[in-house]
Amino acid sequence: MENAKTAPSAALIAVDWGTSRLRAMLLDGTGGVIAEAASDAGIATLAPGGHEAAFEALVAAWPPVPAIMAGMVGSRQGWREAAYVPCPAAIGRLGGGMLRFTTSAGRPVAIVPGLMLRTPARDGDVIRGEETQIAGLIDREPGFAGIAVLPGTHSKWATITEGTVSSFQTFMTGEMFELLSRRSFLRHSVAEDGHDLAALPDFTLGVRRTVVDGLPFLAAIFSVRARQLLDGVAPADNLAYLSGLVVGGEIAAARASGLLGHGTALRIVGTRSLGRAYATAFAIADYRPTALDGGALVVEGLAHLARTIGFLDKASPA
Amino acid sequence: MENAKTAPSAALIAVDWGTSRLRAMLLDGTGGVIAEAASDAGIATLAPGGHEAAFEALVAAWPPVPAIMAGMVGSRQGWREAAYVPCPAAIGRLGGGMLRFTTSAGRPVAIVPGLMLRTPARDGDVIRGEETQIAGLIDREPGFAGIAVLPGTHSKWATITEGTVSSFQTFMTGEMFELLSRRSFLRHSVAEDGHDLAALPDFTLGVRRTVVDGLPFLAAIFSVRARQLLDGVAPADNLAYLSGLVVGGEIAAARASGLLGHGTALRIVGTRSLGRAYATAFAIADYRPTALDGGALVVEGLAHLARTIGFLDKASPA
Repeated sequence: MENAKTAPSAALIAVDWGTSRLRAMLLDGTGGVIAEAASDAGIATLAPGGHEAAFEALVAAWPPVPAIMAGMVGSRQGWREAAYVPCPAAIGRLGGGMLRFTTSAGRPVAIVPGLMLRTPARDGDVIRGEETQIAGLIDREPGFAGIAVLPGTHSKWATITEGTVSSFQTFMTGEMFELLSRRSFLRHSVAEDGHDLAALPDFTLGVRRTVVDGLPFLAAIFSVRARQLLDGVAPADNLAYLSGLVVGGEIAAARASGLLGHGTALRIVGTRSLGRAYATAFAIADYRPTALDGGALVVEGLAHLARTIGFLDKASPA
Repeated sequence: MENAKTAPSAALIAVDWGTSRLRAMLLDGTGGVIAEAASDAGIATLAPGGHEAAFEALVAAWPPVPAIMAGMVGSRQGWREAAYVPCPAAIGRLGGGMLRFTTSAGRPVAIVPGLMLRTPARDGDVIRGEETQIAGLIDREPGFAGIAVLPGTHSKWATITEGTVSSFQTFMTGEMFELLSRRSFLRHSVAEDGHDLAALPDFTLGVRRTVVDGLPFLAAIFSVRARQLLDGVAPADNLAYLSGLVVGGEIAAARASGLLGHGTALRIVGTRSLGRAYATAFAIADYRPTALDGGALVVEGLAHLARTIGFLDKASPA
């Protein structure tokens, strides 16, 4: 970000602090980004007690304004643990679950809590980090009723009504794809890497097998091997096919478990390439989701949550 | 095996030659085992051209009788490739698909072919090695009509009527359990190893989640993490729970794909511990399978197939 000609007044540092990366954004009073900084000081790289120094080193050049943080920084392995807030959870009232403290240098800090779910029929679920993108979505569309799908290593599906997360579900989709394509016996039948897999026809084929033909995921995956052995399918096409099985398997599982109803409104929150892949897969299942940029929603979510605890002015920018 | 007092006359060497092990049994004319030998000269350890020497070294002390072989020895990476026979396949006529040749020392050898399946609705499937255990089952129960379940790294379910394999399905169950329990993020939530997991109550719980509650496998697995985080479930119990999810997921997928009907007769062919685990899981799904020893069925299957090509006398022992 370039500095504006008339330097805006810094009001808040918004922090996205995950397992492998620390990202900080200096915001003005309206939530606009004045400056950005990032480092590899992810939670997994820090020893207990090292968090304050790592953070202050990154933002040393910025004014001593309050900071709001989301992600693994609030986990048991993080700076300080912000306990999970149980669902249903009104995003506008998440502030009550924030962990607040003042650093040794006198800087006020608030850590956003994760969400937890306990139901008799399942064995529970947890979110930490994605709740902030959901807050950004709710800031942008306060009246949204439907499901926010946040694809990734661990995909999260959050059911939202009137600013409240009523329920959510984790699917280990990205990790399952990595395990099967790189660590399993199927690795001999697929390419090592692929680009824009969802654009290949075999991605569509894999999605159709699970979403349209209703083939259960566990009954579908060995066909990756058979396609290579019996049909000589090319490794790149077979990787796209496996990707289709995994993403299609996620959608089919969401439908089978009653999470995804007919005509449910959907928002996909993620990178552009994940957004495209999921939009392609959802179209085969007859859904027309809107894809939103996950990076932008993190900032908007942190600003939204900061307003609820007085770290930013309530009034949104004009 | 001890030698009998009156040494029986050797008629055949029956060979189970897989990826990591080579196992040979010297049989008399009735299919009885006279002697056994085994080595680590699995297919994966041998260079092209090294198979005959590895085999002859193992059986050097035995008479120069014909040999019948099953397993990866007949794959593209094996001694010689025995092409897959398409399903439906009558086990009694598999002899026509055997690859037969004579070694440089003049020993007749027959390699049992695998089975393949091609259907428009699926993308095909293959079996190599398990067809021999199925032949052993058919030798023992010629009139069996139902499904033979051969659990393992890659579980095979074969639908059998009147000595014919009409169809089959592979589930990567054992490998999925290994990947999730040892290579995935869930490894932090389960014990490294477990003994007799199916005897633990949490195994039953995992099976019930997928088989009774109908939770899709992909929607179920992250609960392993949540159980640790929210309930402090012990790692050993959580490993049993994950095992229950995977085995139950296999049974639920077989049911959902139409493979496993109501009241289908079942034989489990495998080790004693796998037989116990699957019998426990099937009981929850309301099936009462019979468990059979997979090692014994390999020998019986090889003897059965040897009779169809004149390597052993047709008449079974009294």
